Amino acid sequence: MAEVKKIAVIAGDGIGPEVVAEAEKVLKRTEELFGYKFQTEHALFGGIAIDEKGTPLPQETLDICQKADAVLLGAVGGPKWDNNPKELRPETGLLGIRKALGLFSNLRPAVVFDCLKDASTLKAEVLEGTDLIVVRELTGGIYFGEKFRRETENGQEAVDTCAYNVNEVERIVRQAFEIAQKRRKKLASVDKANVLETSRLWREVVIKVAPEYPDVELEHVLVDNCAMQLLRRPSSFDVIVTENMFGDILSDEAAMLTGSIGMLSSASLGEGSFGLYEPVHGSAPDIAGQNLANPIATILSVALMFRMTFGYADAADAIERAVSDVLNAGHRTGDIAVDKSKAIGTTEMGDMIVAAIKK
Amino acid sequence: MAEVKKIAVIAGDGIGPEVVAEAEKVLKRTEELFGYKFQTEHALFGGIAIDEKGTPLPQETLDICQKADAVLLGAVGGPKWDNNPKELRPETGLLGIRKALGLFSNLRPAVVFDCLKDASTLKAEVLEGTDLIVVRELTGGIYFGEKFRRETENGQEAVDTCAYNVNEVERIVRQAFEIAQKRRKKLASVDKANVLETSRLWREVVIKVAPEYPDVELEHVLVDNCAMQLLRRPSSFDVIVTENMFGDILSDEAAMLTGSIGMLSSASLGEGSFGLYEPVHGSAPDIAGQNLANPIATILSVALMFRMTFGYADAADAIERAVSDVLNAGHRTGDIAVDKSKAIGTTEMGDMIVAAIKK
Ligand SMILES: [Mg+2]
Ligand SMILES: [Mg+2]
Repeated sequence: MAEVKKIAVIAGDGIGPEVVAEAEKVLKRTEELFGYKFQTEHALFGGIAIDEKGTPLPQETLDICQKADAVLLGAVGGPKWDNNPKELRPETGLLGIRKALGLFSNLRPAVVFDCLKDASTLKAEVLEGTDLIVVRELTGGIYFGEKFRRETENGQEAVDTCAYNVNEVERIVRQAFEIAQKRRKKLASVDKANVLETSRLWREVVIKVAPEYPDVELEHVLVDNCAMQLLRRPSSFDVIVTENMFGDILSDEAAMLTGSIGMLSSASLGEGSFGLYEPVHGSAPDIAGQNLANPIATILSVALMFRMTFGYADAADAIERAVSDVLNAGHRTGDIAVDKSKAIGTTEMGDMIVAAIKK
Repeated sequence: MAEVKKIAVIAGDGIGPEVVAEAEKVLKRTEELFGYKFQTEHALFGGIAIDEKGTPLPQETLDICQKADAVLLGAVGGPKWDNNPKELRPETGLLGIRKALGLFSNLRPAVVFDCLKDASTLKAEVLEGTDLIVVRELTGGIYFGEKFRRETENGQEAVDTCAYNVNEVERIVRQAFEIAQKRRKKLASVDKANVLETSRLWREVVIKVAPEYPDVELEHVLVDNCAMQLLRRPSSFDVIVTENMFGDILSDEAAMLTGSIGMLSSASLGEGSFGLYEPVHGSAPDIAGQNLANPIATILSVALMFRMTFGYADAADAIERAVSDVLNAGHRTGDIAVDKSKAIGTTEMGDMIVAAIKK
């Protein structure tokens, strides 16, 4: 009998509860079909935790996550909490949970769904076959470096500091090589080594560890060139690894070129197999509670969890195939429907995908 | 009679001399047609200056530039000098000339030529009407901040520093507002104010000076969102102003989406009207001296010079129209030809454009 996998389920705010509910149906169906065993435990997080517990990240939630093998997160935040003091903002909870769980990388697969190719602003023949993943360092770099102001003779000056040490770079570069080994075995390391010292260190580390992954084809790409090449030859990329800010920019560009940004999943990983999985889209408070949200990104986050944390490639494949089959059959939620009058609801989409999962 | 405008002409390396020669024909033709007077003086710069004078930026060249009203630059660099020590590299000359001439902004227009729309990886209907300009700060930010290494318990650490003071931001933001006033009166200021202190200072300055340009519609865009919006709605942008590194990335992305990166001009500006104009493309040593280079980017750099430095909008319009007319008539150099066997040479393209300039 399969080992029981513990999944902490954080529905969060806005459309979070609705899309997570559909993902849980998918979990249940894969148990039935593949014999896997999941034990889910729900926890409060984000705005709803602020309202009910007075903090975006209650200790109890953290305990549940730390005892789990993986976390499934819906979405957090909304206008209700936007003007709160910093410690009472949902986003502060996100930073806190990543830190507490030791998550140092963010994975953003950018996949093109054949039947949604028209949604992209890129030409179909350019997009054809695009299936890449951006591995972004999440804990270092200029976003977390020392920041301050000082007076100068040219008026106030603002300063940000960007720092990376060898260990920080090495752990994410190794993770990216390992991910590439399980995919098409191509890694693009993105830096600005012709100008930045942190990028030179980054490239030194990549060059140092690369010989340990001789089966992976490595290229070094300057960040501005990468912003161009993502447009010119998106399908040629497999895994892209880069530092925090470059990853922030490039993962959004890569997501947009798929044309299906509302359909993309993501993972935040640390050492070992533990991971936090969530859709790239936000909490969409404007459509919350109306059965209008698209649950596909959250359902694909479950597939990503199966693949990355549990090693259940068979079930991951089955879920992804089910999503494709339902889309190919022409079913659409409102966000991706051309004819909005024929759009189906959140639960209908979830049910159809569940019904389409085949062993 | 028109005032004589002095133009320092730096042909440079690779295809530089060939494309600059065609641009000079254009200068001559606009003198005849519009009654303007130009006095050109040639100067050595880049690799050829290293070979002939032992330095990429001879004092004599700098003197010629400083006495001029504008500089027209072809291209510099090539494999011959790539392994030189830093002070003997063509790129070092570029940094030196910008600094000596007080050039603090780089302007990169990204224009779509109707008849070349197919060259873009974006759909024609998305590109339709795209005509934007990226104004990039050129002297500050992380590329020029303090850089160093230090030992830590996590291995060597590399540090880059990003700094901006109020005066540096204000001068380029004002320049961008003024450029927007002469165009479609829309300005997108790009920053990462939700995370970076330098970006918060940047945004404060933009908000402070904005009321002085009430005719310009201003939007603040986060850099990662801008990387997406350039793909989603390129034609909605007019002027984009941003700091050095963001501008490096976004101007390349914007250039690539036009599909005609070999056709784009650029300007580096300082205080006042002085400017250095050059094509975005490089020196292409592989095709140098073979009458294969496309002179259009350099010819359009002359049009940009007319518009930005001299205020000769009539002649600028005439040059741009001539380029369009020649392209619309189906003439192509090899780089943009679909049927390479029908491609014309550098001089033929230059002659055709010259012949097409009409008052
Ligand atoms: Mg981002
Ligand atoms: Mg660049």
